[in-house]
Amino acid sequence: MDELRTLEIKREILADNSHEADVFRAARRAEGTFMMDVMGSPGAGKTTLLLGLIEKLKGEGATEFTPEMGVIEADLESDVDALKIKEAGVASVELNTKNVCHVEMGMVEKAFAAFEGKRFDYLFLENIGNLVCPAEFDTGCHCRIMLLSVPEGYDKVYKYPPMFAVVDALVVTKCDYLSMNPDFDLPALREAARVLNPNLEVLVVSARTGEGMDELASWVKAQRELALD
Amino acid sequence: MDELRTLEIKREILADNSHEADVFRAARRAEGTFMMDVMGSPGAGKTTLLLGLIEKLKGEGATEFTPEMGVIEADLESDVDALKIKEAGVASVELNTKNVCHVEMGMVEKAFAAFEGKRFDYLFLENIGNLVCPAEFDTGCHCRIMLLSVPEGYDKVYKYPPMFAVVDALVVTKCDYLSMNPDFDLPALREAARVLNPNLEVLVVSARTGEGMDELASWVKAQRELALD
Repeated sequence: MDELRTLEIKREILADNSHEADVFRAARRAEGTFMMDVMGSPGAGKTTLLLGLIEKLKGEGATEFTPEMGVIEADLESDVDALKIKEAGVASVELNTKNVCHVEMGMVEKAFAAFEGKRFDYLFLENIGNLVCPAEFDTGCHCRIMLLSVPEGYDKVYKYPPMFAVVDALVVTKCDYLSMNPDFDLPALREAARVLNPNLEVLVVSARTGEGMDELASWVKAQRELALD
Repeated sequence: MDELRTLEIKREILADNSHEADVFRAARRAEGTFMMDVMGSPGAGKTTLLLGLIEKLKGEGATEFTPEMGVIEADLESDVDALKIKEAGVASVELNTKNVCHVEMGMVEKAFAAFEGKRFDYLFLENIGNLVCPAEFDTGCHCRIMLLSVPEGYDKVYKYPPMFAVVDALVVTKCDYLSMNPDFDLPALREAARVLNPNLEVLVVSARTGEGMDELASWVKAQRELALD
């Protein structure tokens, strides 16, 4: 297997995927569905953040409309997270990648079809816990965010740059751990992340204490308006 | 790109890699070098654990011999970790994968050559922070361990089974966080991990407080003896 041939195959796969993603994204926009891809390491707090965010969006929407929301829960295996979301009364579909390290369009389309025509205002994709591979694959969403939890350490921005470069927002999670992690240098993280991605929104939250969750919900709401405008 | 063709290419790549790994492993054994692959999510504590482990191995070895130790530090980019290891006075080589999500043999060979013939008793490979892809690629080491940090959550065993299935030991790190994470179910983790991997050694440590580090060093020392026997 020579390296050039491998690279060429990868380029083909990514090009096919991007084309499918554009078609899917346009179809969701036409239906008024805003889709957001949520990425981050295993244990960054993706499921807990989504549960908190959905609560906030329900509340915020109450004056105008009650938004319809759903979650596609991707995992290598298991239905642990999909069940957690269902238990919270939110529509969810389990997407098992069968040990593949990222989500690609064929999987998204299959998972979406499993909702059997249900319409959503917000549809979230919880991607595989992986700070590397998902950055490369367009999942047909309108917006992409990454989570970085305080216990992981701020230096991840130097070590895993591609993910920071492709997302619309960096959400620093578990900020209630900051007191236990005095080395976590938030200003340095912010600066290094914005070198990679000058338009990056940086939000700091704790789903456990609720800190920053209102700001996150407002930002997501604004992203929906921008995407569907 | 049909799926079968992609699978076939992947199988070819993995077979070539395994063959190279076997040759490399035998050559290191002949030189009396024990190599250990250290895997885990970003922020699981791989570098900190290695620094603590190296200190312990230095101490333990003092009565018989002072072991020669080195570290290959793999990252997508940056030399943050390689510098940390060097500052601790340990020989280290930086292996930048240029955004590839795992380490494969060509990279290991190049990194090893950069030591310019220096001989080691223990050589550690700090793999890319990724709980998924590195599990698939043999890196020519005699022993593989994975770290799972308490803040990540014990349910990762259900969601990322391949890594748990291929390693010789699961090292639960940052156990000083257990009091902040009353939901972390260590018995359930142990049980589920041993279903995937009946011979798995499970060690619980905190590199910060030193808890469990003596047991880890003893286990690593025994693994070296087994591998070089």
